[in-house]
Amino acid sequence: MNRSNVARLLVSCRDREGIVASLSSALRDAGANIITSDQFSSDPYGGRFSLRMEFYVPDPDQRLAELEQRLAEIGAELELDYRLVDARRRKRVALFVSRYDHCLLDLLWRWRRRELEMDVVAVVSNHPDLRDEVARFGVPYHHIPVSKETKPDAEQAQIDLLAGEVELVVMARYMQILSDDFLRRIRCPVINIHHSFLPAFAGAGPYQRAYHRGVKLIGATAHYATEDLDEGPIIEQDVIRVTHRDGAAALERIGADVERLVLARAVSWHLQDRVLLQGHRTIVF
Amino acid sequence: MNRSNVARLLVSCRDREGIVASLSSALRDAGANIITSDQFSSDPYGGRFSLRMEFYVPDPDQRLAELEQRLAEIGAELELDYRLVDARRRKRVALFVSRYDHCLLDLLWRWRRRELEMDVVAVVSNHPDLRDEVARFGVPYHHIPVSKETKPDAEQAQIDLLAGEVELVVMARYMQILSDDFLRRIRCPVINIHHSFLPAFAGAGPYQRAYHRGVKLIGATAHYATEDLDEGPIIEQDVIRVTHRDGAAALERIGADVERLVLARAVSWHLQDRVLLQGHRTIVF
Amino acid sequence: MNRSNVARLLVSCRDREGIVASLSSALRDAGANIITSDQFSSDPYGGRFSLRMEFYVPDPDQRLAELEQRLAEIGAELELDYRLVDARRRKRVALFVSRYDHCLLDLLWRWRRRELEMDVVAVVSNHPDLRDEVARFGVPYHHIPVSKETKPDAEQAQIDLLAGEVELVVMARYMQILSDDFLRRIRCPVINIHHSFLPAFAGAGPYQRAYHRGVKLIGATAHYATEDLDEGPIIEQDVIRVTHRDGAAALERIGADVERLVLARAVSWHLQDRVLLQGHRTIVF
Amino acid sequence: MNRSNVARLLVSCRDREGIVASLSSALRDAGANIITSDQFSSDPYGGRFSLRMEFYVPDPDQRLAELEQRLAEIGAELELDYRLVDARRRKRVALFVSRYDHCLLDLLWRWRRRELEMDVVAVVSNHPDLRDEVARFGVPYHHIPVSKETKPDAEQAQIDLLAGEVELVVMARYMQILSDDFLRRIRCPVINIHHSFLPAFAGAGPYQRAYHRGVKLIGATAHYATEDLDEGPIIEQDVIRVTHRDGAAALERIGADVERLVLARAVSWHLQDRVLLQGHRTIVF
Repeated sequence: MNRSNVARLLVSCRDREGIVASLSSALRDAGANIITSDQFSSDPYGGRFSLRMEFYVPDPDQRLAELEQRLAEIGAELELDYRLVDARRRKRVALFVSRYDHCLLDLLWRWRRRELEMDVVAVVSNHPDLRDEVARFGVPYHHIPVSKETKPDAEQAQIDLLAGEVELVVMARYMQILSDDFLRRIRCPVINIHHSFLPAFAGAGPYQRAYHRGVKLIGATAHYATEDLDEGPIIEQDVIRVTHRDGAAALERIGADVERLVLARAVSWHLQDRVLLQGHRTIVF
Repeated sequence: MNRSNVARLLVSCRDREGIVASLSSALRDAGANIITSDQFSSDPYGGRFSLRMEFYVPDPDQRLAELEQRLAEIGAELELDYRLVDARRRKRVALFVSRYDHCLLDLLWRWRRRELEMDVVAVVSNHPDLRDEVARFGVPYHHIPVSKETKPDAEQAQIDLLAGEVELVVMARYMQILSDDFLRRIRCPVINIHHSFLPAFAGAGPYQRAYHRGVKLIGATAHYATEDLDEGPIIEQDVIRVTHRDGAAALERIGADVERLVLARAVSWHLQDRVLLQGHRTIVF
Repeated sequence: MNRSNVARLLVSCRDREGIVASLSSALRDAGANIITSDQFSSDPYGGRFSLRMEFYVPDPDQRLAELEQRLAEIGAELELDYRLVDARRRKRVALFVSRYDHCLLDLLWRWRRRELEMDVVAVVSNHPDLRDEVARFGVPYHHIPVSKETKPDAEQAQIDLLAGEVELVVMARYMQILSDDFLRRIRCPVINIHHSFLPAFAGAGPYQRAYHRGVKLIGATAHYATEDLDEGPIIEQDVIRVTHRDGAAALERIGADVERLVLARAVSWHLQDRVLLQGHRTIVF
Repeated sequence: MNRSNVARLLVSCRDREGIVASLSSALRDAGANIITSDQFSSDPYGGRFSLRMEFYVPDPDQRLAELEQRLAEIGAELELDYRLVDARRRKRVALFVSRYDHCLLDLLWRWRRRELEMDVVAVVSNHPDLRDEVARFGVPYHHIPVSKETKPDAEQAQIDLLAGEVELVVMARYMQILSDDFLRRIRCPVINIHHSFLPAFAGAGPYQRAYHRGVKLIGATAHYATEDLDEGPIIEQDVIRVTHRDGAAALERIGADVERLVLARAVSWHLQDRVLLQGHRTIVF
């Protein structure tokens, strides 16, 4: 068996009896060998059920098609929301950025050293600043300026460029709010990174305000962008300790470190199909 | 269905096809509703497979017996090493301690506030110091002194007291090495807590040496005690940051904090049957 | 020289030249030997300056009085806000609590094992629940019920009991808001502990809401209580990682762990006079 | 006053009375305005004393020379080991690397975005692999191959290239042991980064061994290289949590993340003269 023939099955549904038994039988019949399986039920009575199975499958070109057919039957019977993913195929990704380069460069650098299972098909920016930097990685750079007046046109240009072409958009410190209309029309998940403090500082100048408030931790949150921009389902969070010696500029540098670590983890997990949604929460397997 | 009727199935075996499908069918036939399921395979070809399923079961007094019978058949066929656990029954635990009280008191305190699913049937100590403290929790205190000469007799007394009576021994800063003979005859797992530094300091006076070495992190490791005392399978580890201002006494206080947190987590996970062994490693589901 | 003769000098003032030189000379003339000295200036031009010096002093009964006199002169000249603390004297502390016992017991337990340099002179509670628990530590328990109608009277009773008698009040999960009037009349610092999440959840049921939001970190913030209850100067913050497997009850248990650790650190640092204020920020030396 | 006119005074000596008063007076006389001052005494009686003061100084070209002269007098009288550093001048640094690029690229990237106050004058490698990568940063790349036979010659070439030219060498995953002879002749500090596990795994294949041991934390230690390579004074340490799901390759990736964070912090602190030695320990102000 070719050990690169990995596939994944992701399932979300209302919890009920027999789901695992049915799916396990289907996989066994397809000759699959399960590597990792995770389930989580928010509540077996009326709650939501999430499952991720990663497995080797022999002769995937034929077997995955057959398995897809079988899953369609089971899915209809058990009312499953499921996806079968051929892990040999890398996801196509667009990276959005404004001027801060730390998240973008960290993702590109991890991508080049094969830490991230993706094809970066485009970098989109509302500024021209990072063009040369991105060129070194051999990735097309699309400068699409955005002003209050041109925002609808700019988003239309982004949609024309990307909709149907990418399976993930990563906002690697893209300092524009994507409209609800964009989020609907791009037809793929969008991951965003956001500073997070205890207590939280929404709005402008967060590091300056965190400094004046004397926080002892600087954090970051990676989440899926939804219509309520900073309130989408959380994928990952982390913090770094700071002290009174760290001025607003130091807090911002430390924030950049935690932002790029947290975003890289979130993107990596998403690419491995390890993040499932249960309502407003993520299940990270 | 009575929602307190929770049971757990733990399986370890050589990885092979069909395990999950067979077990899922057996659970479905028993009317069980899976709450959480975790699998992990170290390598699907010749590797080890671990599984933990937690489920509700109706009428457990009858159904679990039937399920046990069915599992015996599946287990024989697939060469499984499995355990079926009725989670309504709390594990009986003995706590071993010497003079440092922080780990012991933390466990007793969590036990009293029902954080830990166990019955504490005995505290065993080679010193009398903590008798009054333990009395307040209503737990029998057994003072079994240990010297080089009396160690075999002391261990025999411990075995007489506990073997067959307890399902877990926790060394809550018990400063004696339990002999291989004891570990075999007690016939239940033994969890120990150990300070851990980067770099490690084996032997006497670890905090004094960590101070002179100028470490920046103080850690603790909870592990199963095996014949090689501090080298048993690791269950949990954590660290707390320190600075040059922290003298050896402060490092010891901070070490006490991380020791009790790490031990409490390890014991809690063990009591929930979340810790499985794969060779020398633990799988913590 | 008697090595227990430790004293501390705390200074806050507008930053200007010559402060350290003047104070150092005064200490040298008093025969003091500086153990630790920390300074921090928010901005040498118009900013605030904070200093903490810990030193041995021979014959402290006489020398500290002389030093106090000398400091009065320097303080007047340089417009210093300063305190000279005889560290041989332990601070008198009152602990306020409602029903959750984790923070209170942790403080009492650390106090008994001499981790905290304080005399606990009273536990004050609006509930009778923890009376027996506190009795074991030999500390008077004052049950002062509080209702919306009786709150002014209850606070008056607390003031009658404590004002002038204690140098610190610790709200160890005291679920009442202390009025501005109380904070003014108690005439000593008040430390509070507060759960902290990323993002923050003010108001009722924070753990339930954190669960539904799917947070990946549970945190706590210890701060000085001010008129704006949860917005006082932050002393310490920390977090513990959680996952989707942790239900609201587990989040609350984990929150209790981080709350007691963070509060214990904050109280310990305050007792050692390591926390100074610069506006709304703390300087923690 | 030009606010970029920052200088630093670093002092190590046997602790004795009057040091701070003398130095403060000297700084006051030089018109200096202290920004930050830290002291630490390992023990005021026979212990070691460390001090770091950062200050603005008007007309530094003249005043620092005068101050140097005054310090020479005080230093002789009080037997001080001291350094006066003009912070306007950036330290010249050589980066050593083998094939792993993560630490090197992280340092170069932070340097380019002005997070690190240094001039990178050379990258030295025993392999040609990273030449193009380094060229993009405009830094000379010196490929000096090393074999068992050529090691003395290679080190001589490194000494010829760098001795007297650089004030810091950073081993950014340079997989050769620098000889004691090299460490003496390079005449500047050398910082190294080392993986750190709990428990520690010296020797080859540490991540593979950490995997088989089932560690729950992956760490890194940055330290000064001394004749005992991995035992030099520790500057910084940190860890990242891992689980049984992380294979040896994942541990290595996670290790790379913590290595580059820890090394970047250590280098940054060294460049700001925040790291002082007290015997085998570092004092990090």
